[in-house]
Amino acid sequence: MGKFDLDSFNYEDLSKMSIDEQKELANDIRKKIIESVSKNGGHLSSNLGCVDLTIAMLKCFSPYKDDILFDVGHQSYTYKILTGRDISSLRQQSGVSGFQKLGESEADKFESGHTGTALATALGISAAKKLSNDDSYTIVMIGDASIANGISLASLNSLDEKTYGKIIIILNDNNMSISRPKGALSQFLNKVRTSVLYQEGAGKFKKTFNRKGLRWFYVLFRKAKNLTKRIFAYPNFFSSFHCTYLGPIDGHNLEKMEKFFERAKVIEGSVVIHVRTKKGKGYKYSENDESGYWHGTSPFDVSTGKPKNMHEGSISFSHLAGDAVVKKMEKDPKAVLITPAMKKGAHLEYAFEKYPSRCFDCGIEEEQAVLLANGFALKGLHPIVSIYSTFMQRSYDELLNDTARMELPILLLVDRVGLTGADGSSHQGIFDMAMSLTIPNVHIYEPYKGDLIFKIIDNYDFTIKGPTFIRLERSYEDINASTNSELTSFLFNKTDSTSAFIGVGTEGFKLYEKLQNKLDTYCLLTIYPFSDKLVYSLLNYEKLYIYDPTSTKDGFITKLLETLVNKGFKGEVKTYSIEPQFVNHSSKNEQLTSLGLDIETVYKIVMEE
Amino acid sequence: MGKFDLDSFNYEDLSKMSIDEQKELANDIRKKIIESVSKNGGHLSSNLGCVDLTIAMLKCFSPYKDDILFDVGHQSYTYKILTGRDISSLRQQSGVSGFQKLGESEADKFESGHTGTALATALGISAAKKLSNDDSYTIVMIGDASIANGISLASLNSLDEKTYGKIIIILNDNNMSISRPKGALSQFLNKVRTSVLYQEGAGKFKKTFNRKGLRWFYVLFRKAKNLTKRIFAYPNFFSSFHCTYLGPIDGHNLEKMEKFFERAKVIEGSVVIHVRTKKGKGYKYSENDESGYWHGTSPFDVSTGKPKNMHEGSISFSHLAGDAVVKKMEKDPKAVLITPAMKKGAHLEYAFEKYPSRCFDCGIEEEQAVLLANGFALKGLHPIVSIYSTFMQRSYDELLNDTARMELPILLLVDRVGLTGADGSSHQGIFDMAMSLTIPNVHIYEPYKGDLIFKIIDNYDFTIKGPTFIRLERSYEDINASTNSELTSFLFNKTDSTSAFIGVGTEGFKLYEKLQNKLDTYCLLTIYPFSDKLVYSLLNYEKLYIYDPTSTKDGFITKLLETLVNKGFKGEVKTYSIEPQFVNHSSKNEQLTSLGLDIETVYKIVMEE
Repeated sequence: MGKFDLDSFNYEDLSKMSIDEQKELANDIRKKIIESVSKNGGHLSSNLGCVDLTIAMLKCFSPYKDDILFDVGHQSYTYKILTGRDISSLRQQSGVSGFQKLGESEADKFESGHTGTALATALGISAAKKLSNDDSYTIVMIGDASIANGISLASLNSLDEKTYGKIIIILNDNNMSISRPKGALSQFLNKVRTSVLYQEGAGKFKKTFNRKGLRWFYVLFRKAKNLTKRIFAYPNFFSSFHCTYLGPIDGHNLEKMEKFFERAKVIEGSVVIHVRTKKGKGYKYSENDESGYWHGTSPFDVSTGKPKNMHEGSISFSHLAGDAVVKKMEKDPKAVLITPAMKKGAHLEYAFEKYPSRCFDCGIEEEQAVLLANGFALKGLHPIVSIYSTFMQRSYDELLNDTARMELPILLLVDRVGLTGADGSSHQGIFDMAMSLTIPNVHIYEPYKGDLIFKIIDNYDFTIKGPTFIRLERSYEDINASTNSELTSFLFNKTDSTSAFIGVGTEGFKLYEKLQNKLDTYCLLTIYPFSDKLVYSLLNYEKLYIYDPTSTKDGFITKLLETLVNKGFKGEVKTYSIEPQFVNHSSKNEQLTSLGLDIETVYKIVMEE
Repeated sequence: MGKFDLDSFNYEDLSKMSIDEQKELANDIRKKIIESVSKNGGHLSSNLGCVDLTIAMLKCFSPYKDDILFDVGHQSYTYKILTGRDISSLRQQSGVSGFQKLGESEADKFESGHTGTALATALGISAAKKLSNDDSYTIVMIGDASIANGISLASLNSLDEKTYGKIIIILNDNNMSISRPKGALSQFLNKVRTSVLYQEGAGKFKKTFNRKGLRWFYVLFRKAKNLTKRIFAYPNFFSSFHCTYLGPIDGHNLEKMEKFFERAKVIEGSVVIHVRTKKGKGYKYSENDESGYWHGTSPFDVSTGKPKNMHEGSISFSHLAGDAVVKKMEKDPKAVLITPAMKKGAHLEYAFEKYPSRCFDCGIEEEQAVLLANGFALKGLHPIVSIYSTFMQRSYDELLNDTARMELPILLLVDRVGLTGADGSSHQGIFDMAMSLTIPNVHIYEPYKGDLIFKIIDNYDFTIKGPTFIRLERSYEDINASTNSELTSFLFNKTDSTSAFIGVGTEGFKLYEKLQNKLDTYCLLTIYPFSDKLVYSLLNYEKLYIYDPTSTKDGFITKLLETLVNKGFKGEVKTYSIEPQFVNHSSKNEQLTSLGLDIETVYKIVMEE
């Protein structure tokens, strides 16, 4: 395609290349990223934004000798290319992961997937190296949304060279987070852009002057400069922490970045280099995106920017839930909506547009989202939290020790539960069920048909004490599907069999239908608390087949069996659910099949028994 | 005792009292606190430190009309007294809780117990009031350690009057956190103490000038002042956020505090009032405490300051673990120790003293503690994290998505598991078992005898992939107890019975011994993974009695039953464990008894069957 071989690039070649060649390389990389993402889906904007930045970084730091940690990690495509990985197979089964991944390359020293872990992990890595006098660099590449996450902020507060050694933080500021950021820190980053006085670094003179015995001059110079800064510049957020702030610099100016990275190496103590990048750069559709549409994308047509409709004539469960929330807020003036940065992902734009004063996006802070909801509930309002399953893991303690303990009625729309496909092991929604079921008095529902989403949200009246979870699979419903599903705790189809099948989720429903008349079949909408009627029915069977391909078997299945056994159940049980494990990237169907949990496999097993 | 009736005080009387009378009241309150804590145990230093502050606060704000949230809440004893509660019954069964508690009084609008939740909850409360045009105040009382917690920092970043309304943050800075704080923010708070220029508030003129059409003058004045500040003062951490900073002021000067609180009311937007208090003030032993000894204390003799030895001749499991860590670090030069502020509580002082370069206290940041450990593990070191069970809930996602997913060998010493007594519902260590068992490939051990703690830590070699949890009960071992316990997965005593008893923890061991020769008895050290030998033995019984009074039954019991049933177990099962619930304050023995889980009760049931 381009001039360079991007399927097995060696980062060391960068240092032999002229700036013009590097620019050409950057263009080739952009093309490769656009091509791969258009084919496989993935994170587009953030990766296009940091192509130049990553090239400059790898001219100055070694991906093998140094430790380079990408916070979250979905912006590491250029890094993968420059360290010899062919991203054509991006996010495909057995292909390159969409995140940094241990084992994929010696250059990936770390895995993340959730916001805010890189800096704290880097502190540990750096401290370990300090203990063994390893003087290689520890570099954290982090976005402007991630740095505002609580774990990042607390890690900034811990920066202390004496304890943890030196960290170089490259703040990749595209002023977007996933959609537009709001917090004070983001406003500071905006303001500082206009201040020329920050465009310099103090450290470069230090060593020189120290060597020449002219430290007094350096100190004087430093004091004068600080004074000037204080008069003319906006107070610097980062000056509160133990680090030197450099920037802002243009994240598309290769020479300048290289200069600053070299400077950061010689500065004593930790450094924050504030780099301004343009998210989506190099692709006209993503460059002009203000909404976050191009943050994470499904396959699309490169020339038109139009999505390749993988789900023609259907609508996602997230979308149905987003619409249901709007209806709920229309009907219930006490309803408020809170989301930790999932406005776009969970299709909440319309709610935010229609009820701006009752909708709250707290940024990537799942803990805060739940606590805000608690505050609303304490004042008698009706908080709805829209949150992804995997990220809800962050708010475990708040849901348990705060929401449940105070018995506050909050409704959680848990998006992307079950197997979710190509994002890989950090993004599967298979743990929330087990997690939620460790919390006393929770209520959990899992709509197995799209129309139930509207009905259950519409019906929920905020009288249940403690958190209620509505689990939403990454599923699609035909837009012409019937909407006459009954809002009942479970479906039941009787035969004269002594065996029963119990299904959960959309696949559970399909198998429930397929197995009808073969044995007694159940399909659950209410996962927990178990209805007495269900439990007493199940006690009578000689054999139970329990099928939940949306969760690990800890939680729903273990809890159901304990209930049955405690009530004297003596029959045989076969369970088809996810053994506790991390599931790698590939399509949802491939994941189901490789776990032996696809409908066909389970149908066959049940029928053969 | 004193001049005032502290058993049913009405806070409204404060406004009728002279400053001298308020001072007398403060002295009476201190005496009452010392008396109650010396009798019942509790948090002493922080409560003595904020007596004056709380009096001043309740002169300016209403505990009923306004919303006053204490972060964590263990510093609310004065607040309880001033709102009519007799704290003689502090932390006793059916007595006054050691924390703010819903239902205990209309003045308690919130519950916490874990650090950092107050500000985010207050944002929700305040936003709810904004929607209904309720102009009462929302006040957060927070300590200097709590404000540095990630959830607090992220909430500061969210402060935005337009969205969430106005919050008044009273920063109770005693420069102690639990023991001495280290982070950049704490250093800032120290530095700012010396700067007189901060001892003022901008807001008081604003309204006046606005009213008189002299806004231009105010703006000019403000700009000049800011300029002066920037030249002479240290850059203000709080100026990065959307709030006005007032202070520092003397937290023992009642008149001054009242003046500042009134000023905070009229300032537009949120306000941080930085109040300096002396932790432990008014009791000579706690005033001079640098180590955090008097942070939380057991009953003591008021005149001597000596603890009333409740456990004469015995040593706590925490203490045994602290000693074992020192030995481990001596033997294994790769071992590093990390704790989120539990140095004192978990008896790690000696390890910190002996191996300062390998010991890390990251402050009250459980997420960070685990991530630091991950960083160390990524570099091949051997991280040991000492953490309280209840607070470990905060690091669920880090343990799951980071430690377990990257298969990093880290050892967690989980302190205070099981029922823990008087701290109440936010501090019971009964959920960690269920939580940990939702994480793939964990290893869990629970020493039922003190000498096993040393043996198991000594024996652990960091080859197990993923997190390993060693659960430490709040138990005491006789110092003369035998130390010949065998490091074996489980104990087994055979009879010719077709029933078996399986016990967990120290109570489980006692019952194991008591029931010997009555039926087959097992006592587990390895909780998970279940040993095959155990599982195959259990399959043969007609009846199993499973006793784990250290956890909710979700987790260990549900998982064991699922394993047994999946392998064809057809017998009867009786389980004696904690039904999922929150357990209120009282002594550990009272808690066991009221749950029907004390040894005598369970023994009787088993024998009668």
